Amino acid sequence: MPLVRITVRDDTSAESQRAISDGVHRAMLATIGIPEADHFQIIDRRPADSIIADPGYLLDDGERRNVVFVEITLVAGRSQEKKRALFAAVATELGQVGVRPEDVFVVLRETQREDWSMGNGESQILDPELLKRHGWTPPTK
Amino acid sequence: MPLVRITVRDDTSAESQRAISDGVHRAMLATIGIPEADHFQIIDRRPADSIIADPGYLLDDGERRNVVFVEITLVAGRSQEKKRALFAAVATELGQVGVRPEDVFVVLRETQREDWSMGNGESQILDPELLKRHGWTPPTK
Amino acid sequence: MPLVRITVRDDTSAESQRAISDGVHRAMLATIGIPEADHFQIIDRRPADSIIADPGYLLDDGERRNVVFVEITLVAGRSQEKKRALFAAVATELGQVGVRPEDVFVVLRETQREDWSMGNGESQILDPELLKRHGWTPPTK
Repeated sequence: MPLVRITVRDDTSAESQRAISDGVHRAMLATIGIPEADHFQIIDRRPADSIIADPGYLLDDGERRNVVFVEITLVAGRSQEKKRALFAAVATELGQVGVRPEDVFVVLRETQREDWSMGNGESQILDPELLKRHGWTPPTK
Repeated sequence: MPLVRITVRDDTSAESQRAISDGVHRAMLATIGIPEADHFQIIDRRPADSIIADPGYLLDDGERRNVVFVEITLVAGRSQEKKRALFAAVATELGQVGVRPEDVFVVLRETQREDWSMGNGESQILDPELLKRHGWTPPTK
Repeated sequence: MPLVRITVRDDTSAESQRAISDGVHRAMLATIGIPEADHFQIIDRRPADSIIADPGYLLDDGERRNVVFVEITLVAGRSQEKKRALFAAVATELGQVGVRPEDVFVVLRETQREDWSMGNGESQILDPELLKRHGWTPPTK
């Protein structure tokens, strides 16, 4: 159910784009308890002059040079600790595929379970039996 | 006031893109009580490798092949029943213009009435007289 | 911390795009109390047929012709008065760089402080000492 929009510069190679996409997904699997198949992303490639990020704001060390924006829309209910773990995991995973940690910018947008239809006009996240069959578990603290 | 972002593959024809856009709008008119003129959309065309959707997650039958993501930002206040009706209508409308129902993915993001300025730097949705003149009615359960 | 997505037509010149981007940032500085360095934007250029906006809905005078959508994701907590001031300032600033006021469409999406990681996998907006060093102040009414 999370829908992830990842914005990268358009000089990112297809291979690197794929590695970033996979890295974000692995970070989510490891920290917020979604099944592996819960994989929905839009990759947004932009020219350098269309991605603006201050180099030093709220960074005590290092500087941003080529920011990757990761916008995650998900059902509300994760604790602050889960969110912190997710942020750390995204930075670690992307660090392993060549994105500098300073350049990893993540924002979460929370929704309710009733705000999703993932196909066929149905409200899958309101159907406990279906969710159980697909390995979904409710967000936990 | 709803602002709708529709993400489609960039091999979607201009004609089909227009039909999808119109279909989403008709579904909203039919189910969530907005006036016909309340029509604001951004169409986001993406190469196939930039739209990632698991084929089977939370679908008991069928599979996703060419997903259309419909992200709707709107004022909070619709009931679960209204949202269900909206999802069903979007899938039906898009089915009539060639999108397979399994490929219709919708997510709602709720806001407050004070979060909108629809021109001239004003807060139109906080102005009851203006809204009345334009046929707007508050979200109902 | 606000993340701003600005959608403009792809026939907008690079110079005008830059002026719009700067104008939105100045409006935010002037009204919602963020430091100058808090500057994060994604510019989304779209062909004319991918930006749909009713010309007259909720406008008593004038009409939309070439809408600029400004979507601002930010930490919750600004009062209605601050939001009104922001909307007015965005319209004024963009008016000074050639965007007609009728064409300035703004929507805010609110989040919690724990929903942000602005680099290094950390939760900067939960760190009061860091925020103080960088001139951040909590949203005020």
